[in-house]
Amino acid sequence: MTAYKKLEATHKRLSALRNAEGILFWDHETMMPPGAAAGRAEVEAELSLIQHEIQTDPRIADYIAEAEDENLDQWQSANLREIKRLYQNANAVPADLVERMVMARSESTMAWREAKPANDFKRLAPKLEALFALKREEAQIKAELFGITPYEAMMQQYDPGRSEAQVDAIFDDLAAFLPEFLQQVLARQAAGPALIMPPGPFPLDKQEKLSRAVMETLDFPFDRGRLDVAAHPFSGGADGDNRITTRYLEEDFTASLMAVIHEVGHALYEDGRPQEWRSQPVGNSRDMTVHESQSLLLEMQAGRSEEFIRHLVPMARDILGGNGPAWEVDNIVRLQHKVEPGLIRVYADEVTYPLHVILRYKLEKAIVADDIAIADLPLAWNDMMEQYLGIRPESDTDGVMQDIHWPEGLFGYFPTYSLGAMAAAQIFTAAKRDEPGIMPGLAQGNVKPLFGWLNENIRSQGCLYLPDELIERATGEPLGTAAYKAAIAARYLN
Amino acid sequence: MTAYKKLEATHKRLSALRNAEGILFWDHETMMPPGAAAGRAEVEAELSLIQHEIQTDPRIADYIAEAEDENLDQWQSANLREIKRLYQNANAVPADLVERMVMARSESTMAWREAKPANDFKRLAPKLEALFALKREEAQIKAELFGITPYEAMMQQYDPGRSEAQVDAIFDDLAAFLPEFLQQVLARQAAGPALIMPPGPFPLDKQEKLSRAVMETLDFPFDRGRLDVAAHPFSGGADGDNRITTRYLEEDFTASLMAVIHEVGHALYEDGRPQEWRSQPVGNSRDMTVHESQSLLLEMQAGRSEEFIRHLVPMARDILGGNGPAWEVDNIVRLQHKVEPGLIRVYADEVTYPLHVILRYKLEKAIVADDIAIADLPLAWNDMMEQYLGIRPESDTDGVMQDIHWPEGLFGYFPTYSLGAMAAAQIFTAAKRDEPGIMPGLAQGNVKPLFGWLNENIRSQGCLYLPDELIERATGEPLGTAAYKAAIAARYLN
Repeated sequence: MTAYKKLEATHKRLSALRNAEGILFWDHETMMPPGAAAGRAEVEAELSLIQHEIQTDPRIADYIAEAEDENLDQWQSANLREIKRLYQNANAVPADLVERMVMARSESTMAWREAKPANDFKRLAPKLEALFALKREEAQIKAELFGITPYEAMMQQYDPGRSEAQVDAIFDDLAAFLPEFLQQVLARQAAGPALIMPPGPFPLDKQEKLSRAVMETLDFPFDRGRLDVAAHPFSGGADGDNRITTRYLEEDFTASLMAVIHEVGHALYEDGRPQEWRSQPVGNSRDMTVHESQSLLLEMQAGRSEEFIRHLVPMARDILGGNGPAWEVDNIVRLQHKVEPGLIRVYADEVTYPLHVILRYKLEKAIVADDIAIADLPLAWNDMMEQYLGIRPESDTDGVMQDIHWPEGLFGYFPTYSLGAMAAAQIFTAAKRDEPGIMPGLAQGNVKPLFGWLNENIRSQGCLYLPDELIERATGEPLGTAAYKAAIAARYLN
Repeated sequence: MTAYKKLEATHKRLSALRNAEGILFWDHETMMPPGAAAGRAEVEAELSLIQHEIQTDPRIADYIAEAEDENLDQWQSANLREIKRLYQNANAVPADLVERMVMARSESTMAWREAKPANDFKRLAPKLEALFALKREEAQIKAELFGITPYEAMMQQYDPGRSEAQVDAIFDDLAAFLPEFLQQVLARQAAGPALIMPPGPFPLDKQEKLSRAVMETLDFPFDRGRLDVAAHPFSGGADGDNRITTRYLEEDFTASLMAVIHEVGHALYEDGRPQEWRSQPVGNSRDMTVHESQSLLLEMQAGRSEEFIRHLVPMARDILGGNGPAWEVDNIVRLQHKVEPGLIRVYADEVTYPLHVILRYKLEKAIVADDIAIADLPLAWNDMMEQYLGIRPESDTDGVMQDIHWPEGLFGYFPTYSLGAMAAAQIFTAAKRDEPGIMPGLAQGNVKPLFGWLNENIRSQGCLYLPDELIERATGEPLGTAAYKAAIAARYLN
């Protein structure tokens, strides 16, 4: 067996373990009886350890070195590049630092679970500080190894090849543009007709029926996928076994419906990866920015297009038994295009969302640069929230402690949400330019023109290219803000 | 770390992998979308391979040898004995023979799936012959290694320490006793009142409600367990995560209900194993005969006792809305105690069931001894069926091809069903002798007296002893037929 083939065999094994973990995670969130949690944690820990041992087998370095002299085709070469990247990341950090980070993360999330409802940031701060110190230590090691900045080292595990300069440019552009744009949109909406919420409650079984009907419209492959209920919507499962979840609110059917469309976007990206490379790193989805582009393209670009909403409303009326003025298509479109500054990121609309992310990005960079102390985060948070969105949290529960990301050590992760939103707009714009049948298709509930383009240009590409190469090859442009700005201008000001 | 502790660590890992497999298997049977089967097979194969590599690591032999000189307590010593047994079994057979068996089993089950509905034993025969030849080769190797007969080598992986002489004695006794006993029971039943089936259909949601109510009565731990629907009832899941399944027949609610009670018996045995030893071989359930004793004790001994049926009938009447003569308790008791010779083992009652098993046992031994050719199996089967039960299959579909066990290579497995039935009766008899509160408890739907005894004498014992030692310690007698014969005489002739 060649060294390259040995590496493929290693990753085939890792892929099987990851697929097993995927089903176990789905089960954990949807099916597992609560009393089984402790035993399950042991199983999960052991599966992680097995993967870690495989990933840090010292023979892999030799195989990689040998394989680099082998004659490989384009996919194999890209696979080797990804294998090397994963190996370097898995082996860069000393085991004792990994262990200390696991402990610190555990303490920090536990503190957060108590501190958030008690609005007591002081309880969280020391734990967060300890975790951040270790994360910075890790970033420093990786920064030296890869010749990048510490913050880039934090970003790269979620979005390989991402540079600070590029994120700065994109976020500075948005931070300059969005606050004023937001005021224009708010003024315009205030002058428009009053919005009417369709009156609930909407029984959960009917909401589920509607979700499934919309999933059928979106060509969700039910023969190799499922829809279930979980506390938080997610897309998971295993290769060729696409499991999405949602949760239903009795009073608002659109919340779960749009979550379903979002998760279908993630799931179809996974499902569209090249069949013959799925067990290899090059057959993986291309990390978080591209993944979020695929969910947001379906949810925000296609799913909230007037064309598609016009197709959905009669289905929803039919299944939920809606009628009257609240159910007029124009009203529903306006409800789906409602913009409103709010304190909580996960409820934000597509105009205000990037400002939430930019706030976190700036604070993360300030912490890494030692420009701010953890104790001063709440004040900085509130000031920036007021500056960007014109509102100020009354408690840290709704401010700096709203997300679990920092207590979980997810630093450098937030940017991918909004870079994904930029990519979604840019990819959708390119797709419509290349394929004029997309919007007429959406108007009729026909996603084939859109998905044909996505399959060819995004889904089938796996990790053949780095994220930005993939986006540039698909759209003809480097990742930027132009398409997003044009799309929101067209949607909210025209 | 001592050699013994290294062995414990190895088995902790194996236990985690087996628990992962347990959840994946449950998912496969209950939740998995059909199109995911091929991908899942790859995951399962890789998990098996990882376990095989761990089990055949040559260092284990050294650790076992070292550990045998360590100072171990009773549980550790029993654990080491089990570890050694598992190691010897996993390493006895050369890898190429294992591989050929996997292939032969795959071909044989595929042939069976076609041959059975087509009533075409000739199509199955050559595949079965090939598989049996390999299984005999395997048995020969193990027989020499362990100093036992080839048929004992086949039995031991399902029932360690089981001797042919003992099975011969038990089955000869039953084969001499049961056919005449059966005729007496049939005569007596024919002279009794006519049976009336409660008229269905019984909606599946109400049947499920009844199942859950009965599971509550049986103290099933729903906080660490589930009930779901699958094509075949089974008890599975993971340590501390007890998942049972059933299937509902619209016309007959008792079929699924008794299946649920049976599977609860399996699940409670798993759930009652010693908490601190669960990740170790000594903490496993004590193989198939003892496992079947626990399901049959609950289904056949306790569950079909007149006391317990009298408690169940009002619950069933209430939930299913039953009334009239069919729902009289005496009629339901008679229905649950109905004996009728039939061609199909899985539908057999407790009187005729052992005869189905003895038939397979005798044929398996004849094949191993080269006393019969595979081609002659159908005739031998039909003749013995006529001799034992007085009925003769009209097709091999209902005869020699009814079970998947042989095509799957499960030779030496059938005896455990009826040895389990003998053990169930013997254990239940001993429990009632030791604990007079058991039957009054069952009459009130209180299983605590019974389960207190089972927890102390069976469930908590794990693999501390070999199966027959366990049974003898719990009941005061070697495994035999006396309790079973007395129980069926009391139930069917008094």
